[in-house]
Amino acid sequence: MFVSRKISESTVRRLSHYLRSLEGFPDIGGTVSSEELAARGQTTAAQVRKDLSHFGSFGKRGLGYSVDQLRDRLRSILGVDRSWRVALVGAGRIGLALFEYPAFRSRGYDCVAIFDSDPEKIGQAWADQVVRSPDEFEKVINELDVELVILALPADGAQEMAMRAVDAGVQGILNFAPIRLNVPPEVPVEDVNLVMELEALSFQITQGEQDA
Amino acid sequence: MFVSRKISESTVRRLSHYLRSLEGFPDIGGTVSSEELAARGQTTAAQVRKDLSHFGSFGKRGLGYSVDQLRDRLRSILGVDRSWRVALVGAGRIGLALFEYPAFRSRGYDCVAIFDSDPEKIGQAWADQVVRSPDEFEKVINELDVELVILALPADGAQEMAMRAVDAGVQGILNFAPIRLNVPPEVPVEDVNLVMELEALSFQITQGEQDA
Repeated sequence: MFVSRKISESTVRRLSHYLRSLEGFPDIGGTVSSEELAARGQTTAAQVRKDLSHFGSFGKRGLGYSVDQLRDRLRSILGVDRSWRVALVGAGRIGLALFEYPAFRSRGYDCVAIFDSDPEKIGQAWADQVVRSPDEFEKVINELDVELVILALPADGAQEMAMRAVDAGVQGILNFAPIRLNVPPEVPVEDVNLVMELEALSFQITQGEQDA
Repeated sequence: MFVSRKISESTVRRLSHYLRSLEGFPDIGGTVSSEELAARGQTTAAQVRKDLSHFGSFGKRGLGYSVDQLRDRLRSILGVDRSWRVALVGAGRIGLALFEYPAFRSRGYDCVAIFDSDPEKIGQAWADQVVRSPDEFEKVINELDVELVILALPADGAQEMAMRAVDAGVQGILNFAPIRLNVPPEVPVEDVNLVMELEALSFQITQGEQDA
C-alpha cells in the first residue's frame, strides 16, 4: 500500500478519533457518512474525506463508508490490528497508573516487563509481573522481543535508558520524562509532558484574555 | 501586547521547550543564541527566531538573547508567571499520579480541590486535601475561585463534569478522559489521551515498515 510520507500528527490523532467513533457504532454491517464521522470527531466532512484519502479510496459518494471495512482499515493503518510487546521503565506513580490502565491491554499493548532502579521496588509483584533491575534490561528486551518502551521516570536517567532501548532494538518510545530525547530518527518517540499540556492550556487562556 | 492569533500548537510546545532550556542555564545575566536554543529544543535557529518573532522583538543580531529577559517573557507568554487554582476531578490512579507530580505545584498549578463520585473515596485525605463529593462541585469551584479543572475520570461522566465546570465559570480543562469534550470554543481544552499516544507511535512504526 502506498502511503504518502507526510501525514501530520493532527491527522493521526483524528484517525484515532474516527476509530473511537466507529467502535461505538452498534449496528454491524451499517454505513457511516463523512458528516457523521465529522460530528463525532469535531471536524468537518471535507476534513474527514481528506484524512481518509491519504490511505487510498474508501466509501462511495452518497453511500458513505462501510463501518466494518473502515474500522478494519483504520486499525490496520494505526497498527492496532496486532499486539505490541511493551516494557515499562519506571515503577512510580505514573508507571503504576499506566500499568493498570485498562485500555492499554484491551487495545493490544501488552506489558511484558517492568524495570526500576530503586532497590526497594526491584522484586515487587505487579499483577503477573515482577519489577526488575535495569541491569537485566538488554537481556530481557531481547529474550521477550520487546517492541515498545514506555519511559515513566524522571528526566535524569531517561536519555540513558532511551539509548539503551534503541541499542537493544526497540522500535518506538512513549516518553513521559520531561526532556526531549535524543535518539536516531528511525526510532519514533511520542512525548507526553504533563507540564507542557498545562502550559498549553494557560497559554490559551492568557492569550485569550489579552485579545479580549 | 499584540499577539497574532494563529499560534500553532507545535509553536507553543517549542516555547515550553525553550523555557525548560533557559531554566537550566546556570549563568544569571548571560546571553543565549538562537543556535543554542535550537540545539536544546531539537529544532533550527531559524525556527527559534520565527517562533519568538510572534511575540515582538527579542535579542540583537550577533548578541543573542538575554537569558533572564527571555525567560521572564516566555513565562509571561505561557501564563506561568502566576499561579493557577486547579481542581482535580477523579481520584483514581491517574488522579493520584497527577496530584503527587512534583512539577505541577512547583510551576504554580495549585490543586485546591479533589472530587470523586465513589463513596469509598469521598472523605479520604490526600495530603492537605480531602476528596469531596461532586454534589459540592459548583459551590466549591465558586468559593475557591477554581480556574482550571483536570478531568481524570472514565469517558462516562466526563462530558457532564466538563459542562458543569464550564457553567461554574472554569477557564480551561485538561482532559484525560478518552473522549472529545463538547464545550464552548471560548473554554480551551487540552486532551491527554494515552491510547492515542500509543496509536501515534504504532502508526509511525507500521508506516515506516511499509515504506522500507
